[in-house]
Amino acid sequence: MARTNPNFDKLAAGYLFPEIAKRTAAFAKSHPGAEIIRLGIGNTTEPIPAHIVDGLMRGAEKLGDLSTYTGYGDEQGDSRLRKAIAEDYARRGVKVDPLEIFVSDGAKSDLGNLMQMFPAESVMAVQDPTYPAYVDTKVIVGGTGEFNRQTGQYEGIVYMPCNRANGFFPEVPKEKVDLVYLCSPNNPTGAVATKKQLAKFVDFAREQKAVLVFDAAYAPFVRDDSLPKSIYEVPGAEECAIEANSFSKIAGFTGVRLGWTVVPQKLQTESKIIYDENGKPKNSLNALWNARQTRFFNGASNIAQEGGLYALTEKGRSECSELVDYYRENARLIREGLAKRGIQAIGGENAPYVWLENPGKMKSWDFFDKLLNETEVVSTPGSGFGPSGEYHTRLSAFGHRANVEKAVDRIVNRLKI
Amino acid sequence: MARTNPNFDKLAAGYLFPEIAKRTAAFAKSHPGAEIIRLGIGNTTEPIPAHIVDGLMRGAEKLGDLSTYTGYGDEQGDSRLRKAIAEDYARRGVKVDPLEIFVSDGAKSDLGNLMQMFPAESVMAVQDPTYPAYVDTKVIVGGTGEFNRQTGQYEGIVYMPCNRANGFFPEVPKEKVDLVYLCSPNNPTGAVATKKQLAKFVDFAREQKAVLVFDAAYAPFVRDDSLPKSIYEVPGAEECAIEANSFSKIAGFTGVRLGWTVVPQKLQTESKIIYDENGKPKNSLNALWNARQTRFFNGASNIAQEGGLYALTEKGRSECSELVDYYRENARLIREGLAKRGIQAIGGENAPYVWLENPGKMKSWDFFDKLLNETEVVSTPGSGFGPSGEYHTRLSAFGHRANVEKAVDRIVNRLKI
Repeated sequence: MARTNPNFDKLAAGYLFPEIAKRTAAFAKSHPGAEIIRLGIGNTTEPIPAHIVDGLMRGAEKLGDLSTYTGYGDEQGDSRLRKAIAEDYARRGVKVDPLEIFVSDGAKSDLGNLMQMFPAESVMAVQDPTYPAYVDTKVIVGGTGEFNRQTGQYEGIVYMPCNRANGFFPEVPKEKVDLVYLCSPNNPTGAVATKKQLAKFVDFAREQKAVLVFDAAYAPFVRDDSLPKSIYEVPGAEECAIEANSFSKIAGFTGVRLGWTVVPQKLQTESKIIYDENGKPKNSLNALWNARQTRFFNGASNIAQEGGLYALTEKGRSECSELVDYYRENARLIREGLAKRGIQAIGGENAPYVWLENPGKMKSWDFFDKLLNETEVVSTPGSGFGPSGEYHTRLSAFGHRANVEKAVDRIVNRLKI
Repeated sequence: MARTNPNFDKLAAGYLFPEIAKRTAAFAKSHPGAEIIRLGIGNTTEPIPAHIVDGLMRGAEKLGDLSTYTGYGDEQGDSRLRKAIAEDYARRGVKVDPLEIFVSDGAKSDLGNLMQMFPAESVMAVQDPTYPAYVDTKVIVGGTGEFNRQTGQYEGIVYMPCNRANGFFPEVPKEKVDLVYLCSPNNPTGAVATKKQLAKFVDFAREQKAVLVFDAAYAPFVRDDSLPKSIYEVPGAEECAIEANSFSKIAGFTGVRLGWTVVPQKLQTESKIIYDENGKPKNSLNALWNARQTRFFNGASNIAQEGGLYALTEKGRSECSELVDYYRENARLIREGLAKRGIQAIGGENAPYVWLENPGKMKSWDFFDKLLNETEVVSTPGSGFGPSGEYHTRLSAFGHRANVEKAVDRIVNRLKI
């Protein structure tokens, strides 16, 4: 008799984005003339640049020709792409071996699937607010308690508050934890951790023999050279950290699906930070992830990978840089508009997200409704990212320029505060 | 302190295909003049047909244009593709609702990930021989015992022997099981289950309240109209069965990555076959799979999905049919060659695999070496698919015609038996 995985029952109902869609649809229905602008979801809106599209087209074209056709590729990714990614790391002084790079269909899949390398009972720490999928996938994998509606937290997960007092980057946890998920540039706050801040976590992880999982999906938005784009810019990180990354935001590949995860060889073999029940060193995580990926995955699309290769050429990198600049200019406009109204906000400088403190300390969903009613702009309520997100709102810089300008204009002129 | 998932330790070392690669490389090294032909791995070799390549190219091209660009799609798949797949089922008289179809990056991923819907301790039954990934992913997910080198089986998994005596289709298990994985047309045996044979398993699953997971990835090879291409051709299957399928073999999409899984609405809501610890009906599996996919997955590549749409047009279906016919002719040549030498074999009629009884009852790896030495043909040792595969060999019809003809010629004229 099959039973269902009881962890699914723990998932707090009313996932953030469906609720936004529901309220937006209701508003549209009751306001037939409204011209709604969505700055809610972090979805790319601008076309993929020409050279990279050529790469995707070439990838497709090759499959129609006997001499260039390829079937199953390596589950770990095309060796040319693994090499190109390693070279891209090298360009900013980070040494990663191609064998440490696992190409995938995106960072989201990897960030959830990584948990299979650890026992379900592993304790996870997350930033609060945080990208909801980290927590939800952990709940499904197991080891957490129930969702507590009072605290807005799952029991058994360690929440690390991020707020104005700590510069929106957390202190290291006081509790014993096994896995620490960090995202920088951060979704949703747009805050970027300094090397010094990350170094504290690297020290913590090495000391506690915990594994850091670093989500660097928004790294291309970092233009301040003093800020790290990779956890491996911090010495010692290769002994304790896994990094997930993506072509989604840099090349507009959200729908194409291409990402990668770095699992360093040293994340066991030298530092021996993974131990068995008896405190003895075990198989390297690199080998474990390889074993996992070869059984549960069959490689990223060869067409997407060809596009990724083109994105990493000199021409492609220059196109990506322009694309990111487009969204960065959107973010600047949003920040500027908020400043005009005296609304406190962070992010949007080296990140596509602007995180604002709701005027009048309004609750997240109340301000969501107010913004929608008064400006016809869809935002993301901060509380959807965790309890510390309450009284905050995320605005996304992913949108057409004209829409962003219009939304900002409305916030400046129509929002009643 | 992070620990690793102890289930990885249970994975029997020496995975089948790496061992084949190792022996083949060693042979090539010691026989520099050898012209090795690979009939080992089930990887497509022929280009994707023109109209379907047009679809892939169109998918890529759309992303370069502001008016047709799309970012994140639905995790469940493009609604046009879900509808087209439902229409394809309808063409053979099977009623599937598009909301029951979840598009993915391939059947392999789904077949492993599906296990997350059930507690780790669920007991799984598999055909023996079987596709190794079913067993390996179950071992990683948990609930099995150790690998027993004497029996060639993992403790805690129910193996259902397939052999000449039962027509290479198993009896229903005598044990209590929660999940039953069936593959038809079968990999590796090439045997195709009849409706009557499948009906026995549907009855068993409904009676035992078990869930059938049906791998139909090779269904396009079925040309005998009396044989089922989908488990849902069996009445009642919609109350107990999940079906995984793929564009890999029909359209040459092994590297493109596109598949789907059907999770019927009735697989809970009407038949109530999923129960909680107290015997009470729970969330439908359709809802659970949706919850899983929206958290761990971000949709299949939009380019691959556009290609899938073209593959399901009238023109695309005709191209797929020709492509499958090409491999079917290869299979016919292989069967014919074996028959000339009096080697007993099944499969290869409505399947791309031919399963042969090794002459002189040779052990699998011995015959692998013999075939390689005497004919320079790479095969797949049957024992790699489970203990009942011992004394058997799988030959794959995926290959260029000229190579298949040459391989058959060598088997006919050079193999010493």
